[in-house]
Amino acid sequence: MAKECNVALIGQQFMGRAHSNAYLKVPRFFDVPIEPVMHTIAARDGKSLEPFATRWGWRHWTTRWRDLAADDAIDLVDVSTPNDVHAEQAIAMLEAGKHVACEKPLAGTLDDARAMKAAAAKAKGKTFVWFNYRRCPAVALAHQLAREGRLGRVYHVRANYLQSWGGPDTPLLWRFEKKRAGSGAHGDLNAHIIDMARFILGDEITEVTGAIAETFIKKRAKLGGKRGAMGRSDVDDCVLFLARFRKGAVASFEATRLATGNQNANFIEINGEHGAIRFSFEDMNLLWYFDNRDDARTAGWRRIMCTSAGNHPYADAWWPDAHVIGYEHGFVNMAADMMRVLGRKKPVVPLPDFADAYETQRVLEAAMLAATNRAAVKLSEVK
Amino acid sequence: MAKECNVALIGQQFMGRAHSNAYLKVPRFFDVPIEPVMHTIAARDGKSLEPFATRWGWRHWTTRWRDLAADDAIDLVDVSTPNDVHAEQAIAMLEAGKHVACEKPLAGTLDDARAMKAAAAKAKGKTFVWFNYRRCPAVALAHQLAREGRLGRVYHVRANYLQSWGGPDTPLLWRFEKKRAGSGAHGDLNAHIIDMARFILGDEITEVTGAIAETFIKKRAKLGGKRGAMGRSDVDDCVLFLARFRKGAVASFEATRLATGNQNANFIEINGEHGAIRFSFEDMNLLWYFDNRDDARTAGWRRIMCTSAGNHPYADAWWPDAHVIGYEHGFVNMAADMMRVLGRKKPVVPLPDFADAYETQRVLEAAMLAATNRAAVKLSEVK
Amino acid sequence: MAKECNVALIGQQFMGRAHSNAYLKVPRFFDVPIEPVMHTIAARDGKSLEPFATRWGWRHWTTRWRDLAADDAIDLVDVSTPNDVHAEQAIAMLEAGKHVACEKPLAGTLDDARAMKAAAAKAKGKTFVWFNYRRCPAVALAHQLAREGRLGRVYHVRANYLQSWGGPDTPLLWRFEKKRAGSGAHGDLNAHIIDMARFILGDEITEVTGAIAETFIKKRAKLGGKRGAMGRSDVDDCVLFLARFRKGAVASFEATRLATGNQNANFIEINGEHGAIRFSFEDMNLLWYFDNRDDARTAGWRRIMCTSAGNHPYADAWWPDAHVIGYEHGFVNMAADMMRVLGRKKPVVPLPDFADAYETQRVLEAAMLAATNRAAVKLSEVK
Amino acid sequence: MAKECNVALIGQQFMGRAHSNAYLKVPRFFDVPIEPVMHTIAARDGKSLEPFATRWGWRHWTTRWRDLAADDAIDLVDVSTPNDVHAEQAIAMLEAGKHVACEKPLAGTLDDARAMKAAAAKAKGKTFVWFNYRRCPAVALAHQLAREGRLGRVYHVRANYLQSWGGPDTPLLWRFEKKRAGSGAHGDLNAHIIDMARFILGDEITEVTGAIAETFIKKRAKLGGKRGAMGRSDVDDCVLFLARFRKGAVASFEATRLATGNQNANFIEINGEHGAIRFSFEDMNLLWYFDNRDDARTAGWRRIMCTSAGNHPYADAWWPDAHVIGYEHGFVNMAADMMRVLGRKKPVVPLPDFADAYETQRVLEAAMLAATNRAAVKLSEVK
Repeated sequence: MAKECNVALIGQQFMGRAHSNAYLKVPRFFDVPIEPVMHTIAARDGKSLEPFATRWGWRHWTTRWRDLAADDAIDLVDVSTPNDVHAEQAIAMLEAGKHVACEKPLAGTLDDARAMKAAAAKAKGKTFVWFNYRRCPAVALAHQLAREGRLGRVYHVRANYLQSWGGPDTPLLWRFEKKRAGSGAHGDLNAHIIDMARFILGDEITEVTGAIAETFIKKRAKLGGKRGAMGRSDVDDCVLFLARFRKGAVASFEATRLATGNQNANFIEINGEHGAIRFSFEDMNLLWYFDNRDDARTAGWRRIMCTSAGNHPYADAWWPDAHVIGYEHGFVNMAADMMRVLGRKKPVVPLPDFADAYETQRVLEAAMLAATNRAAVKLSEVK
Repeated sequence: MAKECNVALIGQQFMGRAHSNAYLKVPRFFDVPIEPVMHTIAARDGKSLEPFATRWGWRHWTTRWRDLAADDAIDLVDVSTPNDVHAEQAIAMLEAGKHVACEKPLAGTLDDARAMKAAAAKAKGKTFVWFNYRRCPAVALAHQLAREGRLGRVYHVRANYLQSWGGPDTPLLWRFEKKRAGSGAHGDLNAHIIDMARFILGDEITEVTGAIAETFIKKRAKLGGKRGAMGRSDVDDCVLFLARFRKGAVASFEATRLATGNQNANFIEINGEHGAIRFSFEDMNLLWYFDNRDDARTAGWRRIMCTSAGNHPYADAWWPDAHVIGYEHGFVNMAADMMRVLGRKKPVVPLPDFADAYETQRVLEAAMLAATNRAAVKLSEVK
Repeated sequence: MAKECNVALIGQQFMGRAHSNAYLKVPRFFDVPIEPVMHTIAARDGKSLEPFATRWGWRHWTTRWRDLAADDAIDLVDVSTPNDVHAEQAIAMLEAGKHVACEKPLAGTLDDARAMKAAAAKAKGKTFVWFNYRRCPAVALAHQLAREGRLGRVYHVRANYLQSWGGPDTPLLWRFEKKRAGSGAHGDLNAHIIDMARFILGDEITEVTGAIAETFIKKRAKLGGKRGAMGRSDVDDCVLFLARFRKGAVASFEATRLATGNQNANFIEINGEHGAIRFSFEDMNLLWYFDNRDDARTAGWRRIMCTSAGNHPYADAWWPDAHVIGYEHGFVNMAADMMRVLGRKKPVVPLPDFADAYETQRVLEAAMLAATNRAAVKLSEVK
Repeated sequence: MAKECNVALIGQQFMGRAHSNAYLKVPRFFDVPIEPVMHTIAARDGKSLEPFATRWGWRHWTTRWRDLAADDAIDLVDVSTPNDVHAEQAIAMLEAGKHVACEKPLAGTLDDARAMKAAAAKAKGKTFVWFNYRRCPAVALAHQLAREGRLGRVYHVRANYLQSWGGPDTPLLWRFEKKRAGSGAHGDLNAHIIDMARFILGDEITEVTGAIAETFIKKRAKLGGKRGAMGRSDVDDCVLFLARFRKGAVASFEATRLATGNQNANFIEINGEHGAIRFSFEDMNLLWYFDNRDDARTAGWRRIMCTSAGNHPYADAWWPDAHVIGYEHGFVNMAADMMRVLGRKKPVVPLPDFADAYETQRVLEAAMLAATNRAAVKLSEVK
């Protein structure tokens, strides 16, 4: 019988829900050496906490997240809170000897991220960061194909994450406040596509050559204030940047909440000498692959439905061919891989830890610097 | 607090798993007047039953499905077994006063289906049939748009359900034996698209004008037999038919397991005087809609991402815009609607009961007759 | 220097224009052994004839098409008139020793078509029928791939030609009069897809198993009559039929002018044991190809842009890779192939002659019979 | 009867062919106030010149382009030569009082372009630059929709022009020599998408905020040299840049010849407050349009087939609905519009003259400067 891992989750919003679902489903769909047990949930809002815990089957709940550190029963703490508290919570738990899984981006500031990386380096617990898109089967397959040399020398990376919910009618949510969120679309969305590019290529960005950060909508209706009261949005609505990878690829990245017509278009295309891949989250079950060594007469982008058990990453756990999966399954696949790692097995594809996510954070920082300086920034200058 | 409905499930294969997942998720994602409780699972294979029950959280398990009838604690029995036992099991449970949910197609034969319909008419329990695709948000939206008159007079229905797993290398599974399955692609796949067409149009087929049924692969490797032993596949690999609807639409249907290149392409297009809709399950989050009353200058098929809370059926229960869902969510949405109906609330879109599914069964029968006769068959002749 | 072929064209409407353009362009884009010379145009409407001739560079013009027979200078007569006069004109020209190219369908009735075939068999001139879609590079490539055995045993053909210009507001054009047009969507559109299927498969239909023909809009506004005057449309708005091919494939065909949302969706998909192809005219530069012998991990529909010189049919004549071509180029490619045949060279892919087009006409007839009989019709019964 | 305009063309390569075809087709397909007459062709290679002239119907030919200036019969000179001779030829012809149409980009250097603009300002002849993509119906429609305010405040422009013919096996064509070509993908491809963005938005770029230019393949096989001899490619294989428009939009541009999998993917997407448009040349008959003021329930990207006479730009001249056009038709549409302008009529959408193309050239220059400086460059610094 599988061993167990008692999990504590901090946070009960969108991510709290996505992670709860992941822990719930892992034992049903995966055979993993260690099974997650939904032990304790912690959150500030005591009123909604009990119903949330009951609904999801958390055995205990608390409004005092610090108490988790002292609870010997807890093995893994999952930090699913706003970015400004990641560091404090994650470091406390690492110091208490827990494994820590943290929502992305690693932190709201580079200082926080650096401290988290340092804490992880000293800790005996393992760390994970919820870059869930790595565990879309199509993205995992892209990673595998690239690692096998199917792309050859990579020339181009073209990544953008386009949403459109941030129009002028959207009120001043916490995501529009720099103090809380650290940044806007940048940390929220560019973090994902930087991680995906690094993951698929197995390469690091060495320079951000140019960048634009823009806040188009500077005033938004205050939440809970009196009618007509406006507050200041001080985060970016979009950040675009150009970058170079160590092995030579050139890249463009764009994250925005104002790309009318796109709702969750997390897109990446990579062009190499021997092949190319293309992924768009709105069709997440598909990977497009072009094999440049195919006979030119029948060469073409291949629409790969990444759902075939025995052939595609994570497909064994789910349904028959082309009985497609959705957004939430990336989280379940990741929770399963975390359990594999804790059970000393290999994950299907590599999991990002704090040190890895810190590299993504440095790129975020470099891009913001480049936008401010209106000039290139070497990654070696950002530490 | 929500009331509860004790569920018993018969079957632990593909559908047993899909339904277990549905009952597990309903209380987490939906606020329904009655919550399903995973009370008992019944299946023939006692060896695999306990681990299955444990994995999914079924409180009790039994290899004697008949015992469910006598168990007063059980409110709803879910029949997820091969088609040849649907009638026996469903009728027994209806006679015992249970609500019954049955997998599609309603039965393996029209005689069975008729008996089930009759039993349902006399019973006090409610009946449901798992035509899960009705509860894809895109299909449900198509139904709503059609009901609102957005299509106008309907000219055409073009439906096909294309799979490709039934090639010559696939062995003689129970699905290839008429005795067990009743039919091949016909009952498995045409049942779905007949139901979808009837559901979206709100109209009934009055004639099957012509049909082809074909078994391309007549011999298949026996399972568990000695190497090289071949057995006879006596079900259709494909059935195509043409039909007329009462209000005048003409239609084509095709189901096949040999449509190389297609894995689960459940497709329907409907063209009416005022508009048209198109759906393909391989991109299940999308509905394509053409509004024929749009200005011709900007008219075009609209790619509707059916994931917007407040705007699209079932979207409230899940994730933010365009955080797409998958195959399994159709089952969860249906289980939630069943709980609504048991709690005297309206389902998001209508649920098929035995009488409704019997109409689909008649069309299946008429199509087979037409294929045999090589001539048109009026539905009035099939009862 | 290339030899010349004096061409006479009968007809100055849509097809007259498409053919004129073809003869104009062949010598500019192709190196052919014989070049077409735009010698004479004939048409009934004398008033518009001179401007048309001048515009397109026809050297002579006449309102008396019979005079072409007597003109020794003319080598090839191109019959681009309504279907009801094809036979009379084509036979007269064949008897006069001319080569004849005729618009599709071969004729408005099977009797006419049979007579044309007989006349062709006795004549010394060559015959051609303008099934222009054979000469879309993507369709020609599909033919080549199928001829090479890339599809293997063919299971399925799924062809439809969907237009939508025939709504209730469209007046009573000649295309809606049986006397002139012979049929509606059937001869106009099904003729194309029957020819395409026969061409790609290299196989013949042996049975129409069932068919529906429907006239949804029975009254249309008379042209040039007084306001409000309505006349009777006595052709089909749509014809759907199911068929079997000699080598075993089963097929569905549909042609309609009422498929709201589709403008010129000439679509075919063929599924075989080893592979599949898919073509849709609205994206005419693309062939989709699925190679069933690809590794399952990277197998997928391949989007082949059929524009690569040296790799794809006809691409050498035109522009660099992916500088796409359009509808008219099918006609130019065909005119070039006709010149090759007249110059004793091989066409890029086979050209249909009257005997070949007669086979398509038999299928049209069989489908209409099946629709009338509401029962299967063997092709052997239709001669 | 239409007046005539005697045209002289310099150049007989790819563009010489595309322009010849345009002049040939205009009088056949368009009713324009002035018709082009294919008067004289000039080119250096005398040997291929006569066959080219004969093939295309040019009445005269010469290897001395300067003689065109002195020929009073000639009204319009079309400069379709490599970029390094545009200035000399165009200026000579303007000084001789001719109208001048010049291939894009305007010139190989900004100095040349400035001199051309100045010459145009003083000349009595009109000038045109062959940014042919403006005259794709879909792009022209995008321009019209934007001009009508359908996009509202524009947030984003995302443009890339992706080709893949420039791999390591491609030899050292003149397009890889800076002396001849001025630049690589930049002038060839970015010129197009800069023009398209300016054209659709009706706005000017004020700053290039960052840029990357890269030559991945630095050595290529010499043409006509001895086997194995390699020469230096000194132009960019790709240029990426970020930019800001005066009215506030932020933009990314990318041109490359190494985007494996893409052959001629000229792509632009524009997101505004009220709507969005998307165009990709590989599907050139389509414009995708998202109307942000549509009801959220049925809002979606609309696939507009831009082929409807009376509704879409240029569609009247060609074929019935969805009988699609190709690459060459952009040139024909443009030649027709030039004739309209010379005949004092309005073009369907505005034509770029030298002053307009000079603005695009300044952006090209600014992007190259930004790449060199690794810092932002204001357009006001580039004159």
